[in-house]
Amino acid sequence: MNEYHGYDTYLEQNLDSSIRELSQLVAQPSVGAQDWGLKECATLVGQMLEKRGFAVRVLSTEGAPVVFAERKGKNDKTLLFYNHYDVQPPEPLELWESPPFEPDLRDGKLYGRGVSDDKGHIAARLFALDALLDSEGELPCNIKFVIEGEEETASVHLHQFVLENKALLAADACVWEFGGVNEEEIPIQYLGLRGICYVELSVESLSTDVHSGLGGSIFPNAAWRLTWALSTLKGQDERIRIPGFYDNVRPPSELDRELLAALPDIAQEYKSRYGVKEFIKGLTGGTELKVEEIFSPTCTICGLTSGYQGAGPKTVQPARASAKVDFRLIPDQTPAEVLEKLRTHLDAEGFSDVQIEFLGGEPPARTDPDAPFINIVVDTARDVYGVPMQKVPMTGGSGPNYPFVHDLGLPVATAGLGYPDSRVHAPNENIRLDLYLKHAKHMVRVIREFAK
Amino acid sequence: MNEYHGYDTYLEQNLDSSIRELSQLVAQPSVGAQDWGLKECATLVGQMLEKRGFAVRVLSTEGAPVVFAERKGKNDKTLLFYNHYDVQPPEPLELWESPPFEPDLRDGKLYGRGVSDDKGHIAARLFALDALLDSEGELPCNIKFVIEGEEETASVHLHQFVLENKALLAADACVWEFGGVNEEEIPIQYLGLRGICYVELSVESLSTDVHSGLGGSIFPNAAWRLTWALSTLKGQDERIRIPGFYDNVRPPSELDRELLAALPDIAQEYKSRYGVKEFIKGLTGGTELKVEEIFSPTCTICGLTSGYQGAGPKTVQPARASAKVDFRLIPDQTPAEVLEKLRTHLDAEGFSDVQIEFLGGEPPARTDPDAPFINIVVDTARDVYGVPMQKVPMTGGSGPNYPFVHDLGLPVATAGLGYPDSRVHAPNENIRLDLYLKHAKHMVRVIREFAK
Repeated sequence: MNEYHGYDTYLEQNLDSSIRELSQLVAQPSVGAQDWGLKECATLVGQMLEKRGFAVRVLSTEGAPVVFAERKGKNDKTLLFYNHYDVQPPEPLELWESPPFEPDLRDGKLYGRGVSDDKGHIAARLFALDALLDSEGELPCNIKFVIEGEEETASVHLHQFVLENKALLAADACVWEFGGVNEEEIPIQYLGLRGICYVELSVESLSTDVHSGLGGSIFPNAAWRLTWALSTLKGQDERIRIPGFYDNVRPPSELDRELLAALPDIAQEYKSRYGVKEFIKGLTGGTELKVEEIFSPTCTICGLTSGYQGAGPKTVQPARASAKVDFRLIPDQTPAEVLEKLRTHLDAEGFSDVQIEFLGGEPPARTDPDAPFINIVVDTARDVYGVPMQKVPMTGGSGPNYPFVHDLGLPVATAGLGYPDSRVHAPNENIRLDLYLKHAKHMVRVIREFAK
Repeated sequence: MNEYHGYDTYLEQNLDSSIRELSQLVAQPSVGAQDWGLKECATLVGQMLEKRGFAVRVLSTEGAPVVFAERKGKNDKTLLFYNHYDVQPPEPLELWESPPFEPDLRDGKLYGRGVSDDKGHIAARLFALDALLDSEGELPCNIKFVIEGEEETASVHLHQFVLENKALLAADACVWEFGGVNEEEIPIQYLGLRGICYVELSVESLSTDVHSGLGGSIFPNAAWRLTWALSTLKGQDERIRIPGFYDNVRPPSELDRELLAALPDIAQEYKSRYGVKEFIKGLTGGTELKVEEIFSPTCTICGLTSGYQGAGPKTVQPARASAKVDFRLIPDQTPAEVLEKLRTHLDAEGFSDVQIEFLGGEPPARTDPDAPFINIVVDTARDVYGVPMQKVPMTGGSGPNYPFVHDLGLPVATAGLGYPDSRVHAPNENIRLDLYLKHAKHMVRVIREFAK
């Protein structure tokens, strides 16, 4: 496809200035969980789009504002990009090698909170549009961006937003926020996302912390109540014990298993990267590990808090205890269903004192692996990465793709600049500049081939 | 006993200046768990004793120094006071109505960390000596003080210190660090202390925290491992499940039960003070509640820490999790025995990945309720409090009385300025000034009657 030589040259020659723009975006904190900098970041993203001739509207929701932008192109086809400008909390701060909101370029990588998830994708896609506009003065088709600010807090208001703005968001296809290469540098096409139901479970057993010598024998202990309640949710065999939890889980199809079997084995890579000594459930690798990773719903304790947590001993019986717990859902599970079953289960087990606070959720959704747009995205990758994308039936993470798939009726393709050591959601989040450039090149091709 | 009129007048007239001295002592932080201000506090306590003509030695141990002080008196009898100058951590700071290390006098109460536990006792006892010295110019008997700096961190080095300094510490009787009145203003004589074994249990399942969308289905989760391990230690029926844990627990004697039955019912008081809705084990009050409070060994979760603990959701699978756990022990249990049984139990349950860090322990010990010195302390209370002390066979808390009872062979009596709302180990720790004065008056009587 030597028709892309000019675009590629433009991107290679202007990489530095795009990375400078990305660095400005990363330097603006936008931590949803801590209500830190969201509006400022939405404004900044809006300015970046206006610079490219987009008509930008910053639309308010009951939560963080959504940046919507649209620019007409040469024909009537419309491609919608879904991205988000919010980021995960930077904690634990002491593990960062450079401050999370002071982007730092080292060894061909740019470090900072949100640099991969998801600000790098916003910047790289705008960079691709720069190449198209530089060459042709206009876009080959209509381009829309919907960039929300609540993705890292479970996109609580996005579903409603999509339902209320179906005409505005109407399109023919959608490029999702993320994507990237696997351990073998093969770009991956994720065809769906697991759902999520995120809750905080809390217990208050006393009105004040009490000396443990006094209360230990006769007062209820919030930390014990929480521990016992949690231990009824999942057994050491990793089986989730909430009655009916698995009722709506659709097992993987034969095609799903075939797609997963075609992927490289991940066992050794995971063991060395994350320090896994042994996988759970007796898994050792191969297709079964890959199937389990994606098609098994989860109940994960994300955090525990109670009583004294400082250095040394403190003899106190805590009045309060809480746990953050996320459930990853498989089609056709829904967050509402899990919430209801969880409450029923805790009550039945004698834990009506355990409060459930719903912190957000999204149902799972998948796109047809054979959709024509999916194949455009998959095939155009070959020219950039040397190989076509490898299709993966679903990814373990979650996101608000459900309304795009089921309410807007769009095929949703993934593509991105991620790689296995991106450390999203963890300290030292980073992107590789070579993959940033490749993603921009890929997007130029996707837009042009889609517009044909 | 009008022979005490002069002493009482002295104490009443000089209360303000004693409270000023106590305030200086409380203003000096001495948080053992945080290694904060211990040496400075030991020096300050030494100066307070030197001012009263004591020969003071600040003796080093492998941990915090021990302040030893001695002053000869009119006869050869020797009374030993055991106290400690270290205090509990002040956290959670936001719940204090005045800063923990800025003693604040409000409504007849002095607030500050350590004001009751145990600095108020040190100051009140020195105040009693002031009254004796003012009147007679000398002490009626030999007085020794041993004031350690590791009581709140389980007196790790005190047992060894006592064994190495048996001649120095030789005495005829011992007054313990604490004591006080109950809900009905009756002074209580605690005849023993439960033991303690304090551990931190920790699990490390990965080398780094991981996105919960990735790890939830296939990686071991430290928070789950900890939750499951804890849930094997004690069941919802409050029965501790470590094999052999109860083997060496001696049940209360008939006399123990009688002494407890004579005490006022505590159920309503506990419910209103600590917000207890229901006691555990089906207890409702009466003698059974009192027996259970004291004669039942415990396994208390004092703290839980893992993963994300901030506001809102964070989708992370934690690499580490830990719990602070204390066991209160009944004669003849020992910390070493519990540690060994705990390790064996965790291994047998498949939790060899759970690390045990021993943060300190003391065996339980009791004094004979009929010892003559106990009766001196009990009887002299009547003149100050209007009633004699009420004997309680043991208290729920722990302390290093074992070497004093079993190695020095001393009867150990308790007496003090505490009251049920002292909030020791909790925010807004405080003493009542009227009880401070009463304790000093009581000590004058104890010393003079003991010396007779």
